[in-house]
Amino acid sequence: MLEITSAQNPRVKNAVRLREARHRREQDLMLVEGVRELSRAMQAGVRMIEVFVSDSLCTTRESKSLLDRLHGSFPEDKAFEIVKVAPAVFEKMAFGDRAEGVLAVAEMPRKSLADISFSPEPTATASAMYHPLVAVLEGVEKPGNLGAVLRSADAAGVSALILADSRIDLYNPNAIRASLGTIFTVPVCEAKSGEVLNWLREHQLKIFAARVDGSAPYTAVDFRGPTALVLGAENTGLTSAWAAPDITAVHLPMLGIADSLNVSATAAVLFYEALRQRMDIA
Amino acid sequence: MLEITSAQNPRVKNAVRLREARHRREQDLMLVEGVRELSRAMQAGVRMIEVFVSDSLCTTRESKSLLDRLHGSFPEDKAFEIVKVAPAVFEKMAFGDRAEGVLAVAEMPRKSLADISFSPEPTATASAMYHPLVAVLEGVEKPGNLGAVLRSADAAGVSALILADSRIDLYNPNAIRASLGTIFTVPVCEAKSGEVLNWLREHQLKIFAARVDGSAPYTAVDFRGPTALVLGAENTGLTSAWAAPDITAVHLPMLGIADSLNVSATAAVLFYEALRQRMDIA
Repeated sequence: MLEITSAQNPRVKNAVRLREARHRREQDLMLVEGVRELSRAMQAGVRMIEVFVSDSLCTTRESKSLLDRLHGSFPEDKAFEIVKVAPAVFEKMAFGDRAEGVLAVAEMPRKSLADISFSPEPTATASAMYHPLVAVLEGVEKPGNLGAVLRSADAAGVSALILADSRIDLYNPNAIRASLGTIFTVPVCEAKSGEVLNWLREHQLKIFAARVDGSAPYTAVDFRGPTALVLGAENTGLTSAWAAPDITAVHLPMLGIADSLNVSATAAVLFYEALRQRMDIA
Repeated sequence: MLEITSAQNPRVKNAVRLREARHRREQDLMLVEGVRELSRAMQAGVRMIEVFVSDSLCTTRESKSLLDRLHGSFPEDKAFEIVKVAPAVFEKMAFGDRAEGVLAVAEMPRKSLADISFSPEPTATASAMYHPLVAVLEGVEKPGNLGAVLRSADAAGVSALILADSRIDLYNPNAIRASLGTIFTVPVCEAKSGEVLNWLREHQLKIFAARVDGSAPYTAVDFRGPTALVLGAENTGLTSAWAAPDITAVHLPMLGIADSLNVSATAAVLFYEALRQRMDIA
């Protein structure tokens, strides 16, 4: 197999183009960079189109094991092509980011609310751990925050993360990176806020909206039943779509000078409080 | 007052240089950008040297009120000079960041462990809320994470944040921005890990180290007494300095595929768990 030595190579140029939302939308493809991210995408059954590899940059044990798997003979791994690129070209493709020697062009998993499913209703004797715990993130605009929220959702056992009225696309390469690939393992989808609200009601989830002026402290409510936790965007908070009689507004105590937390900090605190309550009665 | 219209102006060039750690160290000065950040720095008594202002970029109510204060006649505000710059020059100084029309060159508050003090010992009847809650962040390398941890520390009532063996300087402009200025209101300092450990022991704080392999779940320990919460760097975790018989290693449950949380997510969860325990018995 010949190694690509020019950043002007059309395949290289097309891959780099996928950093832009417009090209991802047009081609219905995304970029998956990094060893952990790509491993988790493959594990999750994401369909790869081509994988750019720069062997000399693959120095860690994890990256060598991924290379073995990429070159392996499993029939399901044969659907994609491996493209060798020179380290200098790879570093340009990796765009100043940590260049870990693997970068894939892959199909975007297209999921909608209809694809989110829960395990059958827990019986009276089953643990609260098995009640659905859905997170909704409205109007998010920073890919790094989306990625961090996904990592916390993965860790705290959140059943699904729904992006409502998102201002970025789910498969932004920086969101994938910041999520460490958990974007492929936590059930995720995008929808409009109104649709999400209807869906939560249909599934009989108790809805809690995080608001700085929420009436109940987040530790004074019960997250043990089927629960939805709704978080607003970085600057503007939640829209009025989330003010309704069946929605409980909760707040985190703010003892300092600042009037809000980073959305990923709020998410982590709420997800882990739900988990704490659920484990306590398990 | 003449307006500076060239980015080549020596004062402008010197301010821009302060984005680099080397120049901050050499000049013992820092950059404070943004309306909220600068307001909080002034409130905290940080000594300004010069404040660059581009009036037409100051459009919000907050920025107008800050301008009034900057131009005000309080004697203590007269120690610094106001430098008017053209919007185009300001936008270059603001380095692609949100250009809010104010940017100050200021003295770095130089604080050491000796400057961190606690209110007198709470009596037996006083609330656990008043016991010291110190956070230690070891080996941090991302300014954005430092800023996010400071916001959570401010919000959760953390008494002080100590950077141990930091790989970035405290007053990195991106850390100041990400902290929304709480870096000036939460007591902070830098020291070596060994010194920090000695200091925590001298102050008789119970030390908890967050480790992925920590033996105790973080919800099963008691954070109500005088407490230190120690968190490791983004990739490598805590060094062996924090393994000792008098240090309790705690972990957060990790139910997903990833083996760690973002350090700012871990910090938020631990700070708010301490607050929850302390408020419960208040």
